[in-house]
Amino acid sequence: MYKYWISVFLFLFTWGLHAQDTDFYKDYRVRWLEKAEANTPQLVFTQKAPLQTVKIVPDQQAFQGWKVEPASKENILSFYGNSFRDQTEIILDFGEHVTGYFSFSLAPIGTVADAPVRLKFTFGETPSEIMTPFDPFPGGLSRAWMQDETVTVMTLPSTTTIPRRVSFRYVKIELTAKPSYAFGFTSMYCNAGTSAATAVAPLPSGVDPMIRKIDETSLNTLKECMQTVFEDGPKRDQRLWIGDLYLQAMANYYSFKQIELTKRCLYLLAGLSHPNGYLHPCVYETPEPHGDSRLFLLEYALLYNVTLKDYLEATGDKETAGDLWVVAKKQLDIIHTYLQPDGLMDFKKANKEWWIHIDWKDNLYKEVSLHGVSVFALKNTYELAKLLGKEQEVSELPALIEKMTKAAYRRYYDKKTGFFTGLENKQISYASQIWMVLSGIASKKDARRALQNLSRSENVTTPGSPYLYHYYIQALIDAGLQKEAKEILTSYWGGMIEKGADTFWEVYDPGNDYLSPYNFHPLNSYCHAWSCTPLYFIRRYPEIFQH
Amino acid sequence: MYKYWISVFLFLFTWGLHAQDTDFYKDYRVRWLEKAEANTPQLVFTQKAPLQTVKIVPDQQAFQGWKVEPASKENILSFYGNSFRDQTEIILDFGEHVTGYFSFSLAPIGTVADAPVRLKFTFGETPSEIMTPFDPFPGGLSRAWMQDETVTVMTLPSTTTIPRRVSFRYVKIELTAKPSYAFGFTSMYCNAGTSAATAVAPLPSGVDPMIRKIDETSLNTLKECMQTVFEDGPKRDQRLWIGDLYLQAMANYYSFKQIELTKRCLYLLAGLSHPNGYLHPCVYETPEPHGDSRLFLLEYALLYNVTLKDYLEATGDKETAGDLWVVAKKQLDIIHTYLQPDGLMDFKKANKEWWIHIDWKDNLYKEVSLHGVSVFALKNTYELAKLLGKEQEVSELPALIEKMTKAAYRRYYDKKTGFFTGLENKQISYASQIWMVLSGIASKKDARRALQNLSRSENVTTPGSPYLYHYYIQALIDAGLQKEAKEILTSYWGGMIEKGADTFWEVYDPGNDYLSPYNFHPLNSYCHAWSCTPLYFIRRYPEIFQH
Repeated sequence: MYKYWISVFLFLFTWGLHAQDTDFYKDYRVRWLEKAEANTPQLVFTQKAPLQTVKIVPDQQAFQGWKVEPASKENILSFYGNSFRDQTEIILDFGEHVTGYFSFSLAPIGTVADAPVRLKFTFGETPSEIMTPFDPFPGGLSRAWMQDETVTVMTLPSTTTIPRRVSFRYVKIELTAKPSYAFGFTSMYCNAGTSAATAVAPLPSGVDPMIRKIDETSLNTLKECMQTVFEDGPKRDQRLWIGDLYLQAMANYYSFKQIELTKRCLYLLAGLSHPNGYLHPCVYETPEPHGDSRLFLLEYALLYNVTLKDYLEATGDKETAGDLWVVAKKQLDIIHTYLQPDGLMDFKKANKEWWIHIDWKDNLYKEVSLHGVSVFALKNTYELAKLLGKEQEVSELPALIEKMTKAAYRRYYDKKTGFFTGLENKQISYASQIWMVLSGIASKKDARRALQNLSRSENVTTPGSPYLYHYYIQALIDAGLQKEAKEILTSYWGGMIEKGADTFWEVYDPGNDYLSPYNFHPLNSYCHAWSCTPLYFIRRYPEIFQH
Repeated sequence: MYKYWISVFLFLFTWGLHAQDTDFYKDYRVRWLEKAEANTPQLVFTQKAPLQTVKIVPDQQAFQGWKVEPASKENILSFYGNSFRDQTEIILDFGEHVTGYFSFSLAPIGTVADAPVRLKFTFGETPSEIMTPFDPFPGGLSRAWMQDETVTVMTLPSTTTIPRRVSFRYVKIELTAKPSYAFGFTSMYCNAGTSAATAVAPLPSGVDPMIRKIDETSLNTLKECMQTVFEDGPKRDQRLWIGDLYLQAMANYYSFKQIELTKRCLYLLAGLSHPNGYLHPCVYETPEPHGDSRLFLLEYALLYNVTLKDYLEATGDKETAGDLWVVAKKQLDIIHTYLQPDGLMDFKKANKEWWIHIDWKDNLYKEVSLHGVSVFALKNTYELAKLLGKEQEVSELPALIEKMTKAAYRRYYDKKTGFFTGLENKQISYASQIWMVLSGIASKKDARRALQNLSRSENVTTPGSPYLYHYYIQALIDAGLQKEAKEILTSYWGGMIEKGADTFWEVYDPGNDYLSPYNFHPLNSYCHAWSCTPLYFIRRYPEIFQH
């Protein structure tokens, strides 16, 4: 009952904000949220059971220092057959990454249960989450993201379902309150859910086995992140981010084709945007859909436009794109706000007033990247306008794009080195070159030169996350560097596979298995949306990746 | 689904046993269990909220070394008003003992929740359960009886209900996973349940205040133990025991008059008895009603007869008593099995083949008590037969009672000391004298002498638990020692009240606050059925206790 009232309160509060006259979208919002709701996909659930009991042993050669070995032969049978009473700890392997609701059944063996039992379950996407002590917790985010749950079972036989949704391949079970009687597990499964229900065409035979494995793993990554929104990570943060959505939607067109979900997300973001008309980078579904009115991420707002254009191209759904055109148009004000007479944006001011992401990389200087992503967004938005027959509403864009392109060459490009660098910071970064390429500012020739020179130069700021690696691969392709694109994709995502990835990771540095933006590697998400795009490249560019 | 099948299995298994030809009650069992089911009382739930935040501080003078103090003024308001984020720990006092389902609601304060929260709740009937560390667990029963539960709250605002039923007055809340944002409790309550719903007549004015307090506290004790069966303790063991039922039913006739519940328990015990016809001392309600086919307690089986007779006298329900007469008659075989030509029972053999309880007291020698409780049961069973007009079915009883009475005097009574003692062990115990009195074996004069001499003698085995104290009070009354009865009741149960009892305890030794049959005093039950009978004495014998 209380929950209902709090929801109502929150709802009204949100509406309070939105409904006031200052709401840029006051005529649309209610309908947008209704459409978001109406397009909530049905989750498809499958019961997944553990395949075997395993040991996880220290191994310097293994990823993060832990190696998984089978515990014994026919051990699943003996797991169900034997009393758990004198087990202190057991680790079960589900054989794949699953996301859903975990249930188990206990029964006394040849006796009556006269006391409750207490068990601790630790769920891990990776072996390190199972083996690394969580406390004292060094992580930079809430300890509660870690998936360990203690459960008291008051009467046996009985079946218990752990309330929180969990995301894992391995589960460790510890008996923390031993009864006097013998008892055992009679059933265990995860009711695993996803909104990615359609079968995906297999790759043709003859495709390189590693490419095939990468494709499969990125399909699993995408599938696990597809719930009632495109989540960034099913373990953490479990929510819709524009930057992840852009990449997931792209991959989805080439795989599950779950169009309803993309449509829901586009409407949800629009419906929950700030009254000032700008989009929030992430939104929450529960207890009522809501955004965080304090949070703004510059290039994510712009990438919404690109996502909407992609959606229209992929689906032909002019009604939705037309509905949301007003949002796309409004996001352009961000660029106009910071644009200077010389055709460059006031980076310092923008950087003060907005969060600018680009990549997860300490000390990355983002001036050039911001310029590039802005032009990239302008071009895509103009494309969108044309597809909708609304180019007259943004007739200034071609000239603006031209002006910003010239300005970038004039002020950022160094003919000597062939690199684009910022005005106040001459840092040479992959990010800057990538966005100069993707924006089409760099000519094909200069693009190729810049990208090729990166690997040959000193003091270059390399990509820090799979997120920028996606743009890197796309830039290589755009620059006509197919061979390099295939090599980098194979070595980077293939590197995760060689280290045992079942799904692709939020963070991956080939040189540092323990890298974590949160100061605790088990807290990283090991099934992360922005890492799922290899399947897009492999299936969009068969001539590059399937031969 | 699985749970259903396991239940069916267990059900059929039990039936397998019962339905076979060797089942003494094969013609009755199904109907008895149907009647038990049909008489399940509706639990009445009330939302109980905490009254104040408190501190629990060490104090050598206080019960078990802990004293409760208010934490501050108007602190409940500030508890709900303030952010919990920087609280490490808080203790809330509900002001009374409650049994039910605990719910709490959390909401972010002036922000959006971007991560889960984890809280640990420790529920205690007494301050010592809140303050004594549970681990490493020294207790002799399952650690899982201790009422500490860790809860992960994935999204805020939200309301969470802890699945297990808890029994407490105090709850300690620890924040074990701190989020980055401010949040607070917006609601908290225990949905407290009982089947004792009727109002009980207050005692007349002028009754001694301590007697009034004892009456009130024993009403609360009984109420808390009245669920869908008469439970021994709502915290632990949460089940129906015949020895507790006998006393609870008795107190219930003088207070809540919840007749349906007694009827259910009588049928449940009969329906779940062993195929050999003997009753199990305790039975379980979930997942399907079942007994423990390995467990037998001699005098509890006999006390069933007394409980049935009391029920008939209190309710006049001849149908039920008639239905279950066959059970009562069968329990007499226990006595016949061990009866010897000289009119004494073969104690050594009985003691080997059965669990004989009498009292919770190390080294108590139970020969005389067993004889006494047997004669007590025989007399009550004959009374029952007469009320049902079935005395001809047990026509041997008067002669047998006479014979056993003479035998006890001849073999157990020591004219010099005035005490009844066993054949092979001359231990002088309260238990032996009490049962010689309650059985009517001791003449009024000898009864008075024995009971009065106890306090004046050396090396006497005193009562070890409230359970035997009940029989002691009754014996004093039967012996005409009204003044002593009132004194003992006031000093013993009043002693618990002076030590802060909200409900009466499973274990109470005025000289040792830390006594525990389980080697861990916080594991004791502090709301225990067999301690609830003062209200029976006070209301049944107003001339003794109300003046």
